[in-house]
Amino acid sequence: MSSGSNPESSSSSQLFSAESYFATQPSPPALDADVTGVRTFIARQAKAGRRVVLVTSGGTTVPLELNVVRFLDNFSAGTRGATSAEYFLSAGYAVIFLHRQHSLQPYSRHYSHSTNPFLDFLELEQIAEPQAASLTLSSQTSSPEPIITVRSSDPKHLHTVLSAYKAVHRAGTLHTMTFVTVNEYLWLLRAVSKELNVLGRNAMYYLAAAVSDFFLPREKMSEHKIQSGKGSLIIEMDQVPKILKSMVDEWTPEGFIVSFKLETDSSLLVPKARAALERYGHQVVIGNELHRRKFEVVFVARSAPPSPEHNRDCLEDASSQIEETWLRIDEQIAGAGKEIEEDIIYELVRRHSLWTRSQIRV
Amino acid sequence: MSSGSNPESSSSSQLFSAESYFATQPSPPALDADVTGVRTFIARQAKAGRRVVLVTSGGTTVPLELNVVRFLDNFSAGTRGATSAEYFLSAGYAVIFLHRQHSLQPYSRHYSHSTNPFLDFLELEQIAEPQAASLTLSSQTSSPEPIITVRSSDPKHLHTVLSAYKAVHRAGTLHTMTFVTVNEYLWLLRAVSKELNVLGRNAMYYLAAAVSDFFLPREKMSEHKIQSGKGSLIIEMDQVPKILKSMVDEWTPEGFIVSFKLETDSSLLVPKARAALERYGHQVVIGNELHRRKFEVVFVARSAPPSPEHNRDCLEDASSQIEETWLRIDEQIAGAGKEIEEDIIYELVRRHSLWTRSQIRV
Repeated sequence: MSSGSNPESSSSSQLFSAESYFATQPSPPALDADVTGVRTFIARQAKAGRRVVLVTSGGTTVPLELNVVRFLDNFSAGTRGATSAEYFLSAGYAVIFLHRQHSLQPYSRHYSHSTNPFLDFLELEQIAEPQAASLTLSSQTSSPEPIITVRSSDPKHLHTVLSAYKAVHRAGTLHTMTFVTVNEYLWLLRAVSKELNVLGRNAMYYLAAAVSDFFLPREKMSEHKIQSGKGSLIIEMDQVPKILKSMVDEWTPEGFIVSFKLETDSSLLVPKARAALERYGHQVVIGNELHRRKFEVVFVARSAPPSPEHNRDCLEDASSQIEETWLRIDEQIAGAGKEIEEDIIYELVRRHSLWTRSQIRV
Repeated sequence: MSSGSNPESSSSSQLFSAESYFATQPSPPALDADVTGVRTFIARQAKAGRRVVLVTSGGTTVPLELNVVRFLDNFSAGTRGATSAEYFLSAGYAVIFLHRQHSLQPYSRHYSHSTNPFLDFLELEQIAEPQAASLTLSSQTSSPEPIITVRSSDPKHLHTVLSAYKAVHRAGTLHTMTFVTVNEYLWLLRAVSKELNVLGRNAMYYLAAAVSDFFLPREKMSEHKIQSGKGSLIIEMDQVPKILKSMVDEWTPEGFIVSFKLETDSSLLVPKARAALERYGHQVVIGNELHRRKFEVVFVARSAPPSPEHNRDCLEDASSQIEETWLRIDEQIAGAGKEIEEDIIYELVRRHSLWTRSQIRV
């Protein structure tokens, strides 16, 4: 990275493999504690016979400075991940929710600090002053104590969300972990995958986080805030290694792995999703276009079993046996509160069940 | 911007003035509506004889694509701005709170969705089933209705915050506006400054937002998501024009303008703050070092009147008449809940009062 009017004329980028990445980039300080926590959680779920899904959610950052003031970010509020986690929990899964710090979380997402400000739900009620006629000696009564009450415009919804939240906490089926940088994300993904591998085919990976394709290797980072005033800013970033390949081949070969492909150019969506599936050899790529992501997604997978409930357009490619299944919901129905994640998770649970019963890779 | 293994060898950056910036970069679609809203607010406050402060808060983004997937961001949760807004309100100011969408806001900041999850404050209480001995016909009673109650570990604090929040809403002294990108920020800052200019010296500007020094001109932005797989990513950004100069010279020459200077290298803090004050000719630069910002800040200003209450180190520079005043609070006291913003706002209100009474620039 440089700040100056003359960009460097030669590139110093290198190509990182997953192996060289983890050999050269520093692990997060809390990694050991995070691993211990998730290991305990997984052991408890295994004992209870529950399937476990790792849901990743939110965008990763790429800090430009060691004392970070500026960073590259990937757009994601965490809606897809937080919503999906709720449907996995209600389908009986235990969920490891690995999310960007301060991104949306299951249940509380309905009342995030901006869309439904918490304080607007609370009312101060002053207990009425004693009436003059009641002859109470006001000098003996302490000043009236206000009471805080809950006032919701949709108490039924609040009650439903709160009940589900409390039930999940009682059952202990939700384990949350946080990342900020893409480096933290990669280290945690590897660690959790290796831990979840003990569950074999009962583990699912739902990789909804918006992960940067590029990063700045530690040795290229500026220690202090990059100074302005010297013309333009030039940043050169290296490619993040393709860790899906390592997940499939090494970390969790029996896991049911679902990745996401987000595009803004819809003509690229299916070709890129198919290419990812062929390249990494995992189970499902869910393609979504940025502006249509709440209304339609496409499942790209090898020989997916038929699902008569859903309106689907099948395109079979005989040579690769990869097929596309579209899930769509009506925009009006979505406006009335129906979430496409409900259908996505329903379909994935069905496919995961088939996966756990099969002995060979589908 | 380019994605490829060979960086471009020639720079295409240009130097934008404020004038050429606004002449070439698009205004946000909601600008007119935002201006109408803030104009009404300012008129109401002017009628009530209140001083008005514009508080900017949170970090700006620089999108890399028109259909934005990736963006550069400036680190800021919005704590300084949200906290300061509360102290301005309690000092009798009306506040225009121009903040990054989803960053912290006054009052609700105490209960943000991550640090104090809202749902943990609520309890479901099931009303007890009728006792068998009570002989109530259970077939006639509907199933018991659960009641939602508020449970806080610190009810006194919740009560204080809630009371202040409700009082401000009743008084109508807080007006919130949001930005995401640095472009939106710059357009809104200019528009609000021009509106606030009607208040003359009764307007204050407290520019606590973390504003990018660099941006990507519209004509250089990629329409769609930048594709990976072609080697490294190279981004070249242009410098954001120095709009403080325009604020002082054109938009709001009588306003009391406070800017912030954040550094991670403490040796740069005072020199950079002094340089900013000399360059732009506004009233106060508040310097803060990233890791000490909750415990100490330095006011850099011309001939500030003495303030005996505060522990201060004065360094007079006879040639420029610029002096530095440190405000410090003890880390232990800060840990017990004392906020340095209380002292910052106290000192600024004092200086602003002097400013409103003076006829010449101090």
